[in-house]
Amino acid sequence: MNDVVLYDYWRSSASYRVRIALNMLGIGYRTVPINLLEGKQTSAEYLELNPQGFVPTLVIDGQVMTQSLSIIEYLAELRPERRLLPAGIADRQHVRALAYAVAMDIHPICNMHVAAYVATLTEKAEAREEWMRHFIADGLRKLEHMLSKFDGAFSYGDTPTMADICLVPQVYNARRWGVDLTDLGRIVEIDGRCAKLSGFQAAHPDRAKPE
Amino acid sequence: MNDVVLYDYWRSSASYRVRIALNMLGIGYRTVPINLLEGKQTSAEYLELNPQGFVPTLVIDGQVMTQSLSIIEYLAELRPERRLLPAGIADRQHVRALAYAVAMDIHPICNMHVAAYVATLTEKAEAREEWMRHFIADGLRKLEHMLSKFDGAFSYGDTPTMADICLVPQVYNARRWGVDLTDLGRIVEIDGRCAKLSGFQAAHPDRAKPE
Repeated sequence: MNDVVLYDYWRSSASYRVRIALNMLGIGYRTVPINLLEGKQTSAEYLELNPQGFVPTLVIDGQVMTQSLSIIEYLAELRPERRLLPAGIADRQHVRALAYAVAMDIHPICNMHVAAYVATLTEKAEAREEWMRHFIADGLRKLEHMLSKFDGAFSYGDTPTMADICLVPQVYNARRWGVDLTDLGRIVEIDGRCAKLSGFQAAHPDRAKPE
Repeated sequence: MNDVVLYDYWRSSASYRVRIALNMLGIGYRTVPINLLEGKQTSAEYLELNPQGFVPTLVIDGQVMTQSLSIIEYLAELRPERRLLPAGIADRQHVRALAYAVAMDIHPICNMHVAAYVATLTEKAEAREEWMRHFIADGLRKLEHMLSKFDGAFSYGDTPTMADICLVPQVYNARRWGVDLTDLGRIVEIDGRCAKLSGFQAAHPDRAKPE
């Protein structure tokens, strides 16, 4: 495999997901940091790669790929034997639904550009923090209900899947914003189990942060 | 195939997507309307099926399935020869990225429960409408840039895919909220081409609206 390049930001959940997937599959890569706080994502050069101005972007197999979950689906299809998605199509449906409960129903609403717009609507100094806490707590509560329908050590079954790859960065964010996780027993348990795996450990924002 | 049941709301974009996919694949189904304005999505009975309290839910092959894109992936895998997703894995990656640019980066931010929360943050009567217009316009402008990298009659290639299934309901919504589509030539062109296809026509909200 040629040079694999991940344009990422250490604290971005979407970047964190792709780092986990690459690590789990044993695909080596180098990173190019795109500092969102400095607005690097809107440089003409970066927009050429990623017209949405989001992180991450992955360059692999001569292709420029955007959208973290679409990248993970690609990686999963490159290495189907690693089962980031299960083999059965109904099982895959459930894993994707759990992944999307985070990636569609929590993460975009709490994206930086959305939270920044919220702050313009109100004089309230803590509006951004309240927004984050409200939507992360609400979304994780719903996810906890979904997860209660399945057993196993991870979100779906006894091995980590794309659902866990989405869950862990969201729990990291929940802690960052001070969301109360007391009633989210299954989520906290799964997160703890993932935290013991080297692929998840090596992808953690604290380790991805540039010096 | 056994009885296929779609719990839907005529005006929901996510429901509209699944109706298009079922129609395109020629899978017969009956609908159970869940009136979101009457709060039917939060009844105990419905939450048992869909713990997130969202539409749609599809019951098919003895399984209860939630999350529209995950349902569409399942349907695409049931009928791979119909190419809702292309055969090549890099092609699939691009189609998913285009689909997610709508389904992750526009739709959830404009979801009813999010817009309702926005309205509580400000005294401004038109805050909800402005929110919708801002995020739909911004997201479609970015999608137009993404689409400019590909040619073909539809979003990706010369046959409709999951990307178009996401695009059309979002354009319907954009028109509903009065978003200016003047500079979105490729999006308008693709939407117009889809509008000529029977599967898209039969899924339109005006036809899905209960009497």
